[in-house]
Amino acid sequence: MRALALQDGRLELVPDWPQPAPAQGEALIRVTLAGICSTDLELVKGYAGGFNGVLGHEFVGVVADTGAPDAAEWIGRRVVGGINIGCRRCAVCLSDGPEHCPYRTTLGIRNKDGVFAEWVTLPVVNLRLVPDSVADEAAVFTEPLAAALRIREQIAPRPTTRIAVVGPGRLGLLAAQVLALAAGDVTVLGRRPESLALPAQLGLPTGLVDARPDDSFDLVVEATGNDAGLAHSLRLARPRGTLVLKSTFHGNANVNLTKLVVGEITVVGSRCGPFTPALRLLEQSAGLRGRTAGVGVQVQPLIEAEYPLAEALAAFDHAAQPGVRKVLIRAS
Amino acid sequence: MRALALQDGRLELVPDWPQPAPAQGEALIRVTLAGICSTDLELVKGYAGGFNGVLGHEFVGVVADTGAPDAAEWIGRRVVGGINIGCRRCAVCLSDGPEHCPYRTTLGIRNKDGVFAEWVTLPVVNLRLVPDSVADEAAVFTEPLAAALRIREQIAPRPTTRIAVVGPGRLGLLAAQVLALAAGDVTVLGRRPESLALPAQLGLPTGLVDARPDDSFDLVVEATGNDAGLAHSLRLARPRGTLVLKSTFHGNANVNLTKLVVGEITVVGSRCGPFTPALRLLEQSAGLRGRTAGVGVQVQPLIEAEYPLAEALAAFDHAAQPGVRKVLIRAS
Amino acid sequence: MRALALQDGRLELVPDWPQPAPAQGEALIRVTLAGICSTDLELVKGYAGGFNGVLGHEFVGVVADTGAPDAAEWIGRRVVGGINIGCRRCAVCLSDGPEHCPYRTTLGIRNKDGVFAEWVTLPVVNLRLVPDSVADEAAVFTEPLAAALRIREQIAPRPTTRIAVVGPGRLGLLAAQVLALAAGDVTVLGRRPESLALPAQLGLPTGLVDARPDDSFDLVVEATGNDAGLAHSLRLARPRGTLVLKSTFHGNANVNLTKLVVGEITVVGSRCGPFTPALRLLEQSAGLRGRTAGVGVQVQPLIEAEYPLAEALAAFDHAAQPGVRKVLIRAS
Amino acid sequence: MRALALQDGRLELVPDWPQPAPAQGEALIRVTLAGICSTDLELVKGYAGGFNGVLGHEFVGVVADTGAPDAAEWIGRRVVGGINIGCRRCAVCLSDGPEHCPYRTTLGIRNKDGVFAEWVTLPVVNLRLVPDSVADEAAVFTEPLAAALRIREQIAPRPTTRIAVVGPGRLGLLAAQVLALAAGDVTVLGRRPESLALPAQLGLPTGLVDARPDDSFDLVVEATGNDAGLAHSLRLARPRGTLVLKSTFHGNANVNLTKLVVGEITVVGSRCGPFTPALRLLEQSAGLRGRTAGVGVQVQPLIEAEYPLAEALAAFDHAAQPGVRKVLIRAS
Repeated sequence: MRALALQDGRLELVPDWPQPAPAQGEALIRVTLAGICSTDLELVKGYAGGFNGVLGHEFVGVVADTGAPDAAEWIGRRVVGGINIGCRRCAVCLSDGPEHCPYRTTLGIRNKDGVFAEWVTLPVVNLRLVPDSVADEAAVFTEPLAAALRIREQIAPRPTTRIAVVGPGRLGLLAAQVLALAAGDVTVLGRRPESLALPAQLGLPTGLVDARPDDSFDLVVEATGNDAGLAHSLRLARPRGTLVLKSTFHGNANVNLTKLVVGEITVVGSRCGPFTPALRLLEQSAGLRGRTAGVGVQVQPLIEAEYPLAEALAAFDHAAQPGVRKVLIRAS
Repeated sequence: MRALALQDGRLELVPDWPQPAPAQGEALIRVTLAGICSTDLELVKGYAGGFNGVLGHEFVGVVADTGAPDAAEWIGRRVVGGINIGCRRCAVCLSDGPEHCPYRTTLGIRNKDGVFAEWVTLPVVNLRLVPDSVADEAAVFTEPLAAALRIREQIAPRPTTRIAVVGPGRLGLLAAQVLALAAGDVTVLGRRPESLALPAQLGLPTGLVDARPDDSFDLVVEATGNDAGLAHSLRLARPRGTLVLKSTFHGNANVNLTKLVVGEITVVGSRCGPFTPALRLLEQSAGLRGRTAGVGVQVQPLIEAEYPLAEALAAFDHAAQPGVRKVLIRAS
Repeated sequence: MRALALQDGRLELVPDWPQPAPAQGEALIRVTLAGICSTDLELVKGYAGGFNGVLGHEFVGVVADTGAPDAAEWIGRRVVGGINIGCRRCAVCLSDGPEHCPYRTTLGIRNKDGVFAEWVTLPVVNLRLVPDSVADEAAVFTEPLAAALRIREQIAPRPTTRIAVVGPGRLGLLAAQVLALAAGDVTVLGRRPESLALPAQLGLPTGLVDARPDDSFDLVVEATGNDAGLAHSLRLARPRGTLVLKSTFHGNANVNLTKLVVGEITVVGSRCGPFTPALRLLEQSAGLRGRTAGVGVQVQPLIEAEYPLAEALAAFDHAAQPGVRKVLIRAS
Repeated sequence: MRALALQDGRLELVPDWPQPAPAQGEALIRVTLAGICSTDLELVKGYAGGFNGVLGHEFVGVVADTGAPDAAEWIGRRVVGGINIGCRRCAVCLSDGPEHCPYRTTLGIRNKDGVFAEWVTLPVVNLRLVPDSVADEAAVFTEPLAAALRIREQIAPRPTTRIAVVGPGRLGLLAAQVLALAAGDVTVLGRRPESLALPAQLGLPTGLVDARPDDSFDLVVEATGNDAGLAHSLRLARPRGTLVLKSTFHGNANVNLTKLVVGEITVVGSRCGPFTPALRLLEQSAGLRGRTAGVGVQVQPLIEAEYPLAEALAAFDHAAQPGVRKVLIRAS
């Protein structure tokens, strides 16, 4: 089959990658649509040390077959899927789940071929049905939307919490929308006025990060993944405030920790989140239109472009440009 | 002025109650619309030991005058107002705010005449402007909606938390809608099928409380204010789960605490909440229609009837009937 | 063997109770010393609906045999043991542990014969070695001390938290000592001056519960198990404070919940706790003497009397008298 | 008077520094004994940008005079004192206290002369009486012990939490002792075997930091203040674990944040803590001797040397050497 693979650090569109077969308990899925995320771009740059295989972990697809007779009901269903595959035997899997299993594989990231391909396999337990009212172009956002919801699992923004999201990119705008729900007081901060057009279009309050005074937010979400964004985020958090790190940083960060210690800031790393509420939120938001921050989420305005799988390399080039929104790859 | 007052336990429509004058720092407000809540009904029954004065604390009105020259900008503005008036000097006021000030008065509840009258006074610091897009019939729900949001200030429902609201009444339906935001998984439980029609119309999942098995929810909100509802709520909370008591109970409750101790349940009392996010939520929800649980809140379907102030006693009789939604009193 | 058993609500010393045999994975333990706790007294009164079998769950003993060849190293060792025996297959067991397993048995409380007998069996995974420096008379307190430590697992008293323990009984004095550690500010409150002699002897600040004003503690631990104690505990907790229910209540409690709701109190049920830190604390405290609240724990001053197993009925009579400390039964 | 002052980055023993006079509400204190801490050494290196004045903030002394007639009872009393002096008018002061007041001065650190001098002034509200049983040589540790207790205010180690303190220095050993209280499971980790002699003498479990596997602690306290210690601390924290930063870092830290994000670590900055429980802990521990980790705290073994104020420069040279314990300066 056709697949976009990383091999010894080189990204290639391979015409004859072997089609995977579902193992015991797995489903074989025909990929419909997949999304490129910053982690994919970091993997190409060498993050996480040498993944070899098919990239991609954001997707929607249709189950074609299963390696389990009692899972036949899944065949033909439209699905999304959790990306972490735990051992299901260790203490971490049995208590917290697969996300932090030391033996886990991760779809398109760690020892498991991903979704920039015609076919992919995943354990049936990882699958979630997509409601009919949720279009493929929305369902493909389930994984990053779940990651945004993860913030709400880790910390409890009160309705009166002053929240800033630093970085008006793909993930930042999902995080901001999710935090604006339930009457959240969220401002999206960027470095350039043109980067604020899209959040404004989504109905979110915006501002220039340089113009905001020190210590002016209770909760800051860092969604830039670079040193300057991190420095601003620390600067903006009030003493005893909270800073959520939502982006993976490539290489070492150079941080002045004095504010962190003297201001007794709490910093929380945040990664994967829950699929079921992400799908519920997409379903609830299916009919919404227009400037409605705080009322459902809008994901389709975040789409920049769509490429066929045959042009996946061009899709990656596009996605790597600064200020670009979500680039999708249509696999079938 | 005309006012509905409780005097030595007797509720009376008084034609010539003295019109209040704004003290230093206070505003004089022409009441537009006011809502009857269960606490008002409990006060008439004798709850909180002998309040004497004008009842009522849910309202929207227009500022007519202020007792502060520097507050002239408020005159003519449409407002709602926080109901707790703290001493502003004690440690509680200076840290947590007026809600738990031991010297506080409370609008229509404790040593302060309320809003079932043509005029009322409140400190200017308690006032909040009503956005233009929020109708009076929505703004009058600010106070109970803030009380519902209070739950989100006290506990952090994760997106995966299984939540039940026991009691599909006025407050229960506000709490359920607020908890359904941000992808919350909420079910409204009632004793009779007909009580579930309104929550179903609001798009909320519903069920009969008797039909639900023990230990099946992570978080239960008790919104009935009676022993049977409390017993069910304790029964439904899973071991190590949380139970929020949102209703004031009249007199002593008769509770079997064994489940609470053996199941290590956490019980959280919950009262007044923040007005600013409540108004933000009403503004965001202003244009919404239809079955959209989880996406904004709908308050106007909760209105049962509206009476002129001259018929306030009839309004109370109506509100006291079982299964009745919000009864409003139009004062001007 | 000789055993003290509850049969159809009647407590009897049975001379020829069948000696248990260790099942697969279990150890057979010769009971050395066992303690009577309030739950035992409640079970005799009918709490928890009809346990039939040998009572008792606080003990220290010596392993005589095991039903597992690979557990031979336990033979001859002095042990205490966790009282909850989970199914080890359900989600609760695999995440939180056996304490809330819906299929659990509980030593001497629920479908599992207890320790007021010459022999008892327990799964090897439930056992903990007793350090040499910890005497039998201290080790027998491991289970109630673990239950006291459970409070510190559930809530985080800050060093500045004002704590009251209401009820200077067996469990109350363990809770107070554990909360006094790490610079805790703890007062033990009782109804009668004579009940305060022992806590004073342990170096704990004491007071009469009636003399304390409303709202004067941040954290209150209810350790009386009766309505009056519960009412005082609620009364003493400040608005937004916390109340821990540590005692099982027999039958229904009659509570005025107004303070709980209006004061937004959090109530936390608390039951079994961790054995490993309880043993560590007993070991650290082994050499301590005198008035040293806040520095280790003293358990042996809590011993009221010791009876041989042959006089276990007299031991129960003694333990049931008001104001009595821990009564021990020596089984071998 | 004689004073050790930092002037334009140069540390000097000044023979004729002007003796301070107590302002309204302040006390004039004769310094008895003062301690050199790492922050003092960092200030000399240029941390916190250019403090000019008398250094020093850890002390015990005797009140000689007050600038308040109603505070006469303080005269002649032995005291320690909180180091943050807030404006007492801003929202931070009125809610959280002076530690994070944006207008605060800080004794010997920020716009307020410190205690390496014969006399110092402090607001009376900052003073705490030293119990008679607490020697000057213990009381001088009140401030750093309060800073160690601050960890327990910010996070709640459960009795079963596996805790590492990385850095067996002055502050690390106070933090480790405080965390060992209440049955804490604490290991002190250092880079060289000889650095572990003192924690072992205090009865604390110890180990070499290099020898510990990744992800092996639930809670790690970073007490080295250098990049290597920080990297190890992040490495040792388990996924979803917590890292407390207790040391101020001089300049920028160079950190790999991948573990923080992917492992969803929580990092908590931690600074000043509460004096009252610190004094209570010193009083409770006054009579303790020997290897008793977990039972009170021992501070006097942490003393390396004592110098008269006239030899304060030599004291600083001594304190700046690696692996050195607390160096004291006797001012009178």
